[in-house]
Amino acid sequence: MSCRTEFGPSQPFKGARITGSLHMTIQTGVLIETLTALGAEVRWCSCNIFSTQDHAAAAIARDSAAVFAWKGETLQEYWWCTERALDWGPGGGPDLIVDDGGDATLLIHEGVKAEEEFAKTGKLPDPTSTDNAEFQIVLSIIKEGLAVDPKKYHKMKERLVGVSEETTTGVKRLYQMQANGTLLFPAINVNDSVTKSKFDNLYGCRHSLPDGLMRATDVMIAGKVAVVCGYGDVGKGCAAAMKQAGARVIVTEIDPICALQATMEGLQVLPLEDVVSEADIFVTTTGNKDIIMVSDMKKMKNNAIVCNIGHFDNEIDMLGLETYPGVKRITIKPQTDRWVFPETKTGIIVLAEGRLMNLGCATGHPSFVMSCSFTNQVIAQLELWKERTTGKYKKEVYVLPKHLDEKVAALHLGKLGAKLTVLTKDQADYISVPVEGPYKPAHYRY
Amino acid sequence: MSCRTEFGPSQPFKGARITGSLHMTIQTGVLIETLTALGAEVRWCSCNIFSTQDHAAAAIARDSAAVFAWKGETLQEYWWCTERALDWGPGGGPDLIVDDGGDATLLIHEGVKAEEEFAKTGKLPDPTSTDNAEFQIVLSIIKEGLAVDPKKYHKMKERLVGVSEETTTGVKRLYQMQANGTLLFPAINVNDSVTKSKFDNLYGCRHSLPDGLMRATDVMIAGKVAVVCGYGDVGKGCAAAMKQAGARVIVTEIDPICALQATMEGLQVLPLEDVVSEADIFVTTTGNKDIIMVSDMKKMKNNAIVCNIGHFDNEIDMLGLETYPGVKRITIKPQTDRWVFPETKTGIIVLAEGRLMNLGCATGHPSFVMSCSFTNQVIAQLELWKERTTGKYKKEVYVLPKHLDEKVAALHLGKLGAKLTVLTKDQADYISVPVEGPYKPAHYRY
Amino acid sequence: MSCRTEFGPSQPFKGARITGSLHMTIQTGVLIETLTALGAEVRWCSCNIFSTQDHAAAAIARDSAAVFAWKGETLQEYWWCTERALDWGPGGGPDLIVDDGGDATLLIHEGVKAEEEFAKTGKLPDPTSTDNAEFQIVLSIIKEGLAVDPKKYHKMKERLVGVSEETTTGVKRLYQMQANGTLLFPAINVNDSVTKSKFDNLYGCRHSLPDGLMRATDVMIAGKVAVVCGYGDVGKGCAAAMKQAGARVIVTEIDPICALQATMEGLQVLPLEDVVSEADIFVTTTGNKDIIMVSDMKKMKNNAIVCNIGHFDNEIDMLGLETYPGVKRITIKPQTDRWVFPETKTGIIVLAEGRLMNLGCATGHPSFVMSCSFTNQVIAQLELWKERTTGKYKKEVYVLPKHLDEKVAALHLGKLGAKLTVLTKDQADYISVPVEGPYKPAHYRY
Amino acid sequence: MSCRTEFGPSQPFKGARITGSLHMTIQTGVLIETLTALGAEVRWCSCNIFSTQDHAAAAIARDSAAVFAWKGETLQEYWWCTERALDWGPGGGPDLIVDDGGDATLLIHEGVKAEEEFAKTGKLPDPTSTDNAEFQIVLSIIKEGLAVDPKKYHKMKERLVGVSEETTTGVKRLYQMQANGTLLFPAINVNDSVTKSKFDNLYGCRHSLPDGLMRATDVMIAGKVAVVCGYGDVGKGCAAAMKQAGARVIVTEIDPICALQATMEGLQVLPLEDVVSEADIFVTTTGNKDIIMVSDMKKMKNNAIVCNIGHFDNEIDMLGLETYPGVKRITIKPQTDRWVFPETKTGIIVLAEGRLMNLGCATGHPSFVMSCSFTNQVIAQLELWKERTTGKYKKEVYVLPKHLDEKVAALHLGKLGAKLTVLTKDQADYISVPVEGPYKPAHYRY
Repeated sequence: MSCRTEFGPSQPFKGARITGSLHMTIQTGVLIETLTALGAEVRWCSCNIFSTQDHAAAAIARDSAAVFAWKGETLQEYWWCTERALDWGPGGGPDLIVDDGGDATLLIHEGVKAEEEFAKTGKLPDPTSTDNAEFQIVLSIIKEGLAVDPKKYHKMKERLVGVSEETTTGVKRLYQMQANGTLLFPAINVNDSVTKSKFDNLYGCRHSLPDGLMRATDVMIAGKVAVVCGYGDVGKGCAAAMKQAGARVIVTEIDPICALQATMEGLQVLPLEDVVSEADIFVTTTGNKDIIMVSDMKKMKNNAIVCNIGHFDNEIDMLGLETYPGVKRITIKPQTDRWVFPETKTGIIVLAEGRLMNLGCATGHPSFVMSCSFTNQVIAQLELWKERTTGKYKKEVYVLPKHLDEKVAALHLGKLGAKLTVLTKDQADYISVPVEGPYKPAHYRY
Repeated sequence: MSCRTEFGPSQPFKGARITGSLHMTIQTGVLIETLTALGAEVRWCSCNIFSTQDHAAAAIARDSAAVFAWKGETLQEYWWCTERALDWGPGGGPDLIVDDGGDATLLIHEGVKAEEEFAKTGKLPDPTSTDNAEFQIVLSIIKEGLAVDPKKYHKMKERLVGVSEETTTGVKRLYQMQANGTLLFPAINVNDSVTKSKFDNLYGCRHSLPDGLMRATDVMIAGKVAVVCGYGDVGKGCAAAMKQAGARVIVTEIDPICALQATMEGLQVLPLEDVVSEADIFVTTTGNKDIIMVSDMKKMKNNAIVCNIGHFDNEIDMLGLETYPGVKRITIKPQTDRWVFPETKTGIIVLAEGRLMNLGCATGHPSFVMSCSFTNQVIAQLELWKERTTGKYKKEVYVLPKHLDEKVAALHLGKLGAKLTVLTKDQADYISVPVEGPYKPAHYRY
Repeated sequence: MSCRTEFGPSQPFKGARITGSLHMTIQTGVLIETLTALGAEVRWCSCNIFSTQDHAAAAIARDSAAVFAWKGETLQEYWWCTERALDWGPGGGPDLIVDDGGDATLLIHEGVKAEEEFAKTGKLPDPTSTDNAEFQIVLSIIKEGLAVDPKKYHKMKERLVGVSEETTTGVKRLYQMQANGTLLFPAINVNDSVTKSKFDNLYGCRHSLPDGLMRATDVMIAGKVAVVCGYGDVGKGCAAAMKQAGARVIVTEIDPICALQATMEGLQVLPLEDVVSEADIFVTTTGNKDIIMVSDMKKMKNNAIVCNIGHFDNEIDMLGLETYPGVKRITIKPQTDRWVFPETKTGIIVLAEGRLMNLGCATGHPSFVMSCSFTNQVIAQLELWKERTTGKYKKEVYVLPKHLDEKVAALHLGKLGAKLTVLTKDQADYISVPVEGPYKPAHYRY
Repeated sequence: MSCRTEFGPSQPFKGARITGSLHMTIQTGVLIETLTALGAEVRWCSCNIFSTQDHAAAAIARDSAAVFAWKGETLQEYWWCTERALDWGPGGGPDLIVDDGGDATLLIHEGVKAEEEFAKTGKLPDPTSTDNAEFQIVLSIIKEGLAVDPKKYHKMKERLVGVSEETTTGVKRLYQMQANGTLLFPAINVNDSVTKSKFDNLYGCRHSLPDGLMRATDVMIAGKVAVVCGYGDVGKGCAAAMKQAGARVIVTEIDPICALQATMEGLQVLPLEDVVSEADIFVTTTGNKDIIMVSDMKKMKNNAIVCNIGHFDNEIDMLGLETYPGVKRITIKPQTDRWVFPETKTGIIVLAEGRLMNLGCATGHPSFVMSCSFTNQVIAQLELWKERTTGKYKKEVYVLPKHLDEKVAALHLGKLGAKLTVLTKDQADYISVPVEGPYKPAHYRY
């Protein structure tokens, strides 16, 4: 809202076409409306087949932008939506992309690659050349596009000013392309802004872990033993939430520095196998795979709760659980299943089928967190657009400049009643920073 | 469950008829099943016209007991249900009552009074003699009963061994009857057991306040200013929950001792008028009336959240709000209303229409809390039944003996993995307590 | 200070002789000066052989009262001091006693008993009749007294208006004497005022445990495992302090209710033997004896810290430690000893020789806490003295009336910037309390 | 200790001369002994005029190294000590410097500069050319040196392999010199190792702020209002400590990101002027100057406590206070002064004369913290010395490689009973890290 107030009148996005590929939720709706309020035209798709809130999509489609997203898309539909959101008609593609996970960016890169091959050799992409079902669909879509316009993705690339990427996974892909020299346009890494990463990970999960637990199970957290696997930002938020709610928290870690941080907060650090049979609640936050295996789950107490709040769904061994001989799944309510082992007749409660429990069992992060994330997006898009002709951004990956990160924070402080102290010129000189910031070196850890 | 294991085999309630008047929820279902598992016959009604969970009522009616309760009873239906639950046919009433709020107890006392008057003077109770709509219904029911059997409530009274009462309100009525000399049978005050009061108030609300807030509004609690009106056990739980979730908490108090306790926890103590325009969340917990008036609400920030977690619904001036000229009510979802004032066009969010927000917006206390409460009930009923012929309990109000309160705690410790230390005889003698407890004097504050 | 302002001008203690037996610290100095400022004559001794701050004793001796106390008394000296403080010369003893732990009260009761026996049978007390070294000294002193004046303690008893007792231990003795019918004069239990018990025990120890630990050992509390023996008010304060400082806290308890409270705060509850070899810090708070025995200490980690913050010095088995064959004591600094076992060459750090570590290693409770305690003392003494001729107080134990307890709280709120809410008459009537309090029933637990 | 065990036998510092300029405390003593145990010769001075523990200095001087430091040096003496510690006789200066704040480094740089000027122009440094009293002394010392040996500092520079710098202030100076191209030798920034910065700043101050406050003033922290100026790592530790002890905490900040972090922990963020007259405790942690001026102090409550835990002593305007007309200084005890203003007769308590209060009023950080810091120092010195001939380190500023930072953490985990989880090869590959670490990218914020 502060963005709209500050930038709306000058219509900085006048003339800009923005394509977004990002969970089509109510909060994203606010992002889209902000982009249009600042002058942009917008086309949107979701970046996950399950995450669209249909009422949000409908409202945006009615009022603000072309939306290609619904809850429960097939993979085929998903990529069709992505292609639709990128296609702005004869004039080519978007000027800017808001990406989350990098699928829109991927489609353009693969499209350009196929067009080059076709121009050189006349060879069309061959979907049967890959085992990956999803990538087969990508190739099919590109193949169809080639039939219509063999320069379609080249035109997109030409027009494109840049992309701002939301999440770790997408950022990792971008850095790989930068390293390979294949990145086709500038990219801003929004994920590693402090106001994005700390909010989305630390503060967001501190809020939404107990929210998801309570909605899914009504369990009394006080008095329970909670195991938090991983003590990165997400794990720190989860452990803090469980401790504050009165649980006894045990952390598992591979990194001695993070482990030492856990001990400094009074948390016990142990490997999973040491505590698997005594804990009541297990939360995975590692970003790694194979954290809780079916062999662990078998050793748990009856009605132990097992859930994941890391990005991917392979932290908990759902496949092992589902295929365990004789296991019985009892759905207590959607996203809350009790799995009973045949040997013991005891069972564990698994939330959201091992996927992100705060999205599956609650409503994800609260709006304040998403506002921090999305303000970073808006500011990144503004920066790309403003500098589109200056050559400031090359075909590389950039983090948001520190002063813009600080600006995102400042835009949120007023709402909370916080008042900043202002440096005198003399003080600013003394610590060698401008009066108006940025105040910290790039490596500062906060 | 521990109760069933310990007492089930000996069937201590063999031959006992128990009538309950207590919110017919899933947790109550577990209580009823425990009573029947220990040998009792049970008839049940709810103690609130809205609180019945119909699926719970159905399951109990099918398996365990006669149930007279459904969600959304009229007052007429409510008292009909109460009467039905007390009527065990020709042989009279129940042996024991589990009461919550004291309505079952009230009906018997009023019935006996009317029968006495009728016996003496032939006068029937006159429903038109009172303005109170609910009491008119009570008198009608008694009147109808008199026509059938003029000794109906006398017979009930004769048979009745005693009542165990769940809540503050019911307990207050019992102490008044004791003071007036009109109490007709022994009563055990379950409400003031430590394992009931601390759990239901302190720990229960610490859990269910944030639960209700998050389900109703998805608000980020961190960074907000929360005002907790009252710093009794409920207020202490609420303030702790808000502080732990990252809010800045301000307490209002009338009692200097409780106020001093708040300051010792780092909480600011101020009157409502000093903070009404700067806070984001307001919670009433006082047990008193007229805590947040419409004149206060008008001064609040846009979208301030106002809710009550005290027993009655007159802490927040809902009448003043509803009748405020030009006010507009926008129902965001059931139990979450935005009220917009015509002068400012800004609005506040009121939860659960000013009633108990943890019941209205979430699912009330978690099962662990209710287990503590209801284990007190079972143990109180066992005590009354065991001592029914010994004369231990007169027509007075008793708190549960300390050793039974300790027993309730002990029954819950195993589940949490706690292991007690055992006194040596020598140590027990040194501090003058029995090895097996009770360990504390009656006035101990915990 | 507020007391002096309010009561000083009327000199309510005019003519009163007050004997105090209470740690002779700076804060006690302020108490003594307040008593004299209100008109009393005062004689004082300490109630602990180590707790006297010599500069405080000197200042009081110079300006305000006769003082019999120094840091590091022998037991023999200690009881000599107590007797001196009680002896006001030929005219008998004091009018009022401020007692802490009950030693002054004990001496009079034992003296009277011995005098009665002597009057009846001519038999003198026999110090060799007991194993207890300290009680041998008491008997010796009484025996010597008998030689001089066989009615010495009877005269004291006659004159004495009453005692106000500071601490749990002393109160326990008083209730036993009341139960046995042997209490010789009225007693006010100051210990159980909320503003005393919560401050002295909960908030006071929460402050002074880490203070003592840091002064004595400079140990980093974060990351350590702390065992708190007992979870009464003192234990709750200690556990909170250790948890907040970043330790992992394990509680030992005999009482299931207190144990359940500990679990609700996320603390592990285990018997000492389960954790004795893994913890870094051990604190006894039970008020019982034989909590940590030398056999436990032998199992501890090298440089484990062992200390007591309960009233008496028999929670830690110092005798067992001192007499352990081959044990070596290395005094690191006064009140901080390392004891090395011959078998393992590893050692433990014992603070304050097992006596109150917050007094021995730090400066006891901060002034704010003592101000709450001592304001209760002054108000209790005023009450006893005011009612000395009215018969209001029999030979029984009384707690301070609730409104005086609330007054003590109110006297301290201003200093903290807290502002109370004031009930309307209508609200006060609704909850049946006077507008000006008291606000809570006697059994309220806070 | 783990360092000595691991590296001692190989005597890696054989032949190395190390000069240290770092608070001469007991913990530093352990560092010095470790350096000598690994083969180095050592000369030492303190980096603060008050921070020397004379018994530690004496012990080291006796056993291990040449020490030039005592508690309460004048500035003149301080710089004399620094110069002495750098002077290894005719052969020039040290091979390595352990610096804290950068004063030893500064002296060499200024010395070299002056020698160059002198060589070029014959001009001697002119102490009267600056207002800064301290810098006048530096120039005088260099001037005296020039008279003796006009190449003294050049010789030092030539021999010097590098410096490892302990603290933010010194690091800032180093980066400025690197930016200006004036850095004369390689520098390792130990300050920004996670195991140094988080421990020394966050965890260390969380421990030592309350320690210093309690030792200096015995103040009850609970219930008080504490203002923490700055919310960097030191401020975060201080705010956490005050909040946990039961104070209400207000933060002042210039940086919106840090301010937002404060609000997320429930802390109020306001400028000093808004709270100066209502708070009880003020702590400066900014690393900037002129934070609390005498004009602020005049507005404070009577007996407000003012202290600094930032590196330099110019956060609090001591000069303004000392020269305030009519102000009266009353030394309550060493390092604890009450300053009374003539207009109001009220006074404030200033700790440690505005210098580091945790060193002045307590004993600095606990050994565990210093062990983390100093293990980093040892490892940095080892790295510099090992690579002295390889050209790995240029005249630039380096942070310690991540795997060495993780090693420091791992060396401390065992002591705390923490057990790490070990990655499988498969998991390590999945997240693209070696099984044995390092686990995080350089920019990871922890």
